[in-house]
Amino acid sequence: MTHSHALSIGNYIIFAFMSISRRNFLKTSTFSTATLASIPAIITSCIKPDVNAGGIIDSNNVLLFQGDSITDAGRDKEHELANNAGSFGNGYAYIIASNLLRKYPGKNLALYNRGISGNKVYQLAERWEKDCLELKPDILSILIGVNDYWHMRNGRYEGTPEIYENDYRRLLERTKNQLPEIQLIICQPFILKNTTAVDESWIEPFEAYQDIARKLSLEFNAIWIPFQEVFNEAANHTPENYWLPDGVHPSMAGAQLMAEAWLESIG
Amino acid sequence: MTHSHALSIGNYIIFAFMSISRRNFLKTSTFSTATLASIPAIITSCIKPDVNAGGIIDSNNVLLFQGDSITDAGRDKEHELANNAGSFGNGYAYIIASNLLRKYPGKNLALYNRGISGNKVYQLAERWEKDCLELKPDILSILIGVNDYWHMRNGRYEGTPEIYENDYRRLLERTKNQLPEIQLIICQPFILKNTTAVDESWIEPFEAYQDIARKLSLEFNAIWIPFQEVFNEAANHTPENYWLPDGVHPSMAGAQLMAEAWLESIG
Repeated sequence: MTHSHALSIGNYIIFAFMSISRRNFLKTSTFSTATLASIPAIITSCIKPDVNAGGIIDSNNVLLFQGDSITDAGRDKEHELANNAGSFGNGYAYIIASNLLRKYPGKNLALYNRGISGNKVYQLAERWEKDCLELKPDILSILIGVNDYWHMRNGRYEGTPEIYENDYRRLLERTKNQLPEIQLIICQPFILKNTTAVDESWIEPFEAYQDIARKLSLEFNAIWIPFQEVFNEAANHTPENYWLPDGVHPSMAGAQLMAEAWLESIG
Repeated sequence: MTHSHALSIGNYIIFAFMSISRRNFLKTSTFSTATLASIPAIITSCIKPDVNAGGIIDSNNVLLFQGDSITDAGRDKEHELANNAGSFGNGYAYIIASNLLRKYPGKNLALYNRGISGNKVYQLAERWEKDCLELKPDILSILIGVNDYWHMRNGRYEGTPEIYENDYRRLLERTKNQLPEIQLIICQPFILKNTTAVDESWIEPFEAYQDIARKLSLEFNAIWIPFQEVFNEAANHTPENYWLPDGVHPSMAGAQLMAEAWLESIG
């Protein structure tokens, strides 16, 4: 990883807050004051302040979550409704969406989850017209990449980092061409070793994918959610399988951790 | 309702905080500082400070959520696992449990959801051995009552407030007899009128059930979660169907509102 985040631990994990100024952070945080009081530093190295300082959620926004099984989280794919619990499954996207809908009852938000288990970038592209462009999202949050590596690793997919990069860049270009005003949120794909599916041998090759996602977030002026650093820091204090039992899929605690990091990052 | 709660609105809804002292509230809240700054009063009329001040979650605790469809929230009933997203469904119990597991990674908590859609008190009693007593919960959160009224109202059940009271008291006595150290959390059943299923004619007869739940919470030294007041206040600012589309079942925003109220109430 090319970026590091200073994190501090109180009773529980505290995130690096990236582009949010301390003043804005104090205004918008959902953390406890105990946590606030112990923040040692606001890390600004990873996100451009002009992109997400002060919050990005406007009235009448459509916000779409896209990705693989981590986003899917068992959602009902027969009824793909906005702002609907069944259509959101029970993962980080559900927690985020519930939080936003509670926080902004007057904003008339339309929130969708269209993650599908097992997806790699090319599979997002295959369903992009129906599952992204037709929804005309104002804000698009994407978490994709672990299967691009994992399915190659276990022989189910002939992928490479270059294919991941080219497919992902084309997907983002296509999105920006059709929806020039869209705010992109690119989530760092993540893994943790010492788990049932992931060991040390994953770390270095997977970093190539993570670095590509980071590079694309800069190219496309996206908000970057540094999930790997968040999970690394969590695993410094509680064993990896508490957060990601198989090293890839979050536990309930892991999903909550993701949701809090995402909500902090968007301001 | 015999109890009222002063609530204040900033950018979003602020709860009545009942027994939590301002100092403890500031220490434990997950609300933003913006919200904190505008709290006009801490309401202490409804919960006994000695019961829940300072938090009730200890290491190795088993926490069980019980109730009807609002608690069930589409959970997987084939695999009734602790701390498992599928086994929690996607409602207020999932949000609460995810939050607690993230907040207390070192406490080795075991959290269960055993709510079942359509249940009335006597149906909890029928499955109480397996779905409560065998789990030996240290903390039991119960939300039950709307079907005891609703199913009587629509002719599917011959219930009365007296039957609700007697059944509920017997269930709690049985629980306390078998698990004398248990901490009970009794959630106020709630409805909102001007919705697809609930109109003004529900309010007065349903208050009899709510008053019984409140009375039992005092008898059994339970923590009381005043959901009706929380939803009433929410509906003062955003239409009822935003929180409870049919007047009974919460939206995602409503589930989040419940989770925040519950988490604040337990300290």
